[in-house]
Amino acid sequence: MPAARSLDALLEGLAARRPRAVGRAISLVEDGGEDQRELVREIYPRTGRARVIGITGPPGAGKSTLVDRLARVLRGRGETVGILAVDPTSPYTGGALLGDRIRMQGLYTDPGVFIRSMATRGAMGGLAPATRDAADVLDAAGFDWVLIETVGVGQDEVDVVRSVDTVLVVTLPGLGDDIQAIKAGILEIADVFVINKSDREGADRTVRDLQGMLELDPHPRAWTPPIQKTVASLGQGVEELVGAIERHQAWLRDSGELALRRRACLRLRVEAILKQRVLAAADSGLGLEQEIERAFATKSDPYAAAERLLAGAAEVVLGTSARRSVS
Amino acid sequence: MPAARSLDALLEGLAARRPRAVGRAISLVEDGGEDQRELVREIYPRTGRARVIGITGPPGAGKSTLVDRLARVLRGRGETVGILAVDPTSPYTGGALLGDRIRMQGLYTDPGVFIRSMATRGAMGGLAPATRDAADVLDAAGFDWVLIETVGVGQDEVDVVRSVDTVLVVTLPGLGDDIQAIKAGILEIADVFVINKSDREGADRTVRDLQGMLELDPHPRAWTPPIQKTVASLGQGVEELVGAIERHQAWLRDSGELALRRRACLRLRVEAILKQRVLAAADSGLGLEQEIERAFATKSDPYAAAERLLAGAAEVVLGTSARRSVS
Repeated sequence: MPAARSLDALLEGLAARRPRAVGRAISLVEDGGEDQRELVREIYPRTGRARVIGITGPPGAGKSTLVDRLARVLRGRGETVGILAVDPTSPYTGGALLGDRIRMQGLYTDPGVFIRSMATRGAMGGLAPATRDAADVLDAAGFDWVLIETVGVGQDEVDVVRSVDTVLVVTLPGLGDDIQAIKAGILEIADVFVINKSDREGADRTVRDLQGMLELDPHPRAWTPPIQKTVASLGQGVEELVGAIERHQAWLRDSGELALRRRACLRLRVEAILKQRVLAAADSGLGLEQEIERAFATKSDPYAAAERLLAGAAEVVLGTSARRSVS
Repeated sequence: MPAARSLDALLEGLAARRPRAVGRAISLVEDGGEDQRELVREIYPRTGRARVIGITGPPGAGKSTLVDRLARVLRGRGETVGILAVDPTSPYTGGALLGDRIRMQGLYTDPGVFIRSMATRGAMGGLAPATRDAADVLDAAGFDWVLIETVGVGQDEVDVVRSVDTVLVVTLPGLGDDIQAIKAGILEIADVFVINKSDREGADRTVRDLQGMLELDPHPRAWTPPIQKTVASLGQGVEELVGAIERHQAWLRDSGELALRRRACLRLRVEAILKQRVLAAADSGLGLEQEIERAFATKSDPYAAAERLLAGAAEVVLGTSARRSVS
């Protein structure tokens, strides 16, 4: 745990929105453990002011360029912007995103903008909690907007995108029914659709396809996601997109949906932490790898193995709590 | 828990591969709870003989038709086949899969084939464990092959597909770089690539694209996934595909990889059960919804809320264990 004095210095740096303090705080939440928990405990009461926007869509849709342009429009009004880029684990797409990062260099020199790539975490499922905590860091540091960009592959990333106020789903003309269908889980959480690169052929057809899908949706929606065409590389449609985002934000507040959504986000975050903690506790109890090894060797069924690990985890948790209440 | 006599009758029915017993056993594992655990405990020692194959790919790739044809080829050799279809939650694709199901009707009347759609489970993440348990049911009932078909959207389905012996990734000509990239997490776990509908234009280009991606893969693979072209609707390439699957199975056995893979599957299963159990225990402790409500109202940070829920869950778990060791 950081010494009380260094935590105080960090919080002071955050309050002054000093880039080094913001960067260090995000590193702390990425590293996990007691420091993560202590920092979040301190900053959490100061969160809730920023508008947190998730931007998702397939690689090649131009998300990074769009985020860059959104940030410039918002900066042009004097508002501050924190950007979190969640890189996928895959080596296939890692390179492309790195390229995108480089294209955004112009923004790096602006003190009203903070850009950070979140490292993808391994088996323990820490990516979603760490990214949401990093958004809290930016929120507590006083950034007016937090933009979280993710490819939206895998449960971890879907969890990230579900724990924001407004979800932008970015697509591009000419993606057929197949790609729409594969992203079904993402389409359902869209608050605003963006058809980027809309100077390409087929943009209007893609608009019609999306409208058709929305009309077919059997679940009635209180908010009908608008469809905004953009050409991010030329800045076209980006002002209008900011307008669509703001209309969604206004609707969230006026309808009372914002509180419901933030409570649902809190639940997602708590569940993710619980899952992560039970694996960690099981590991420091019987040892995950050892118990799996033993179960495999003795052909013990997975429920029996989970039962033993859970009991071991419970003892670790209560042992810790007992020691804590003494100290 | 089913009365001892009804469990015995069920196990006897399974041993005789009676369809009603198989169906009832799968319903038990879908329903979850103590019955699921007890049944798996009984059948687990009799599993490990079946070849478990996962078939994944985007909607429209023709997976169901391919599964149908694979089953027919295997039946032609006198081997028995169990099929599990994991339907996605999405209403957009639900209809299409239902259509696929109807096309498979011919197989329904064959006693050497058992077909079952797995219902997608809600928030508690029970789909992957239930599907893997259902594969155990089919394995214990003596089916030579278990084919698990899934769209591969979301962590749940990826977990299902990761816990098999051989993973078939089905794609079709003309899907560009974008769709390949979005499925990056799936591509990495492919043991055999299938390019279905390969009578369409662009099949050879898709083969070259896949080969190129495999060559770019920075992680050296002990097994290089073969790429098989098929036209499932005409039965073309299906015999060859069975050959490719069998070569992979032989490699698994000869290289010692089968045991490693099955241990990794066991770990995935145990982790999924642990996550599911901690949420259930937290819920029967403090109550998940109530604790979230309280945390939201008092602006308690998510780590503090998770901590309280975890302590409550631990007490529930140890309370249960204590009662058990007495009885």
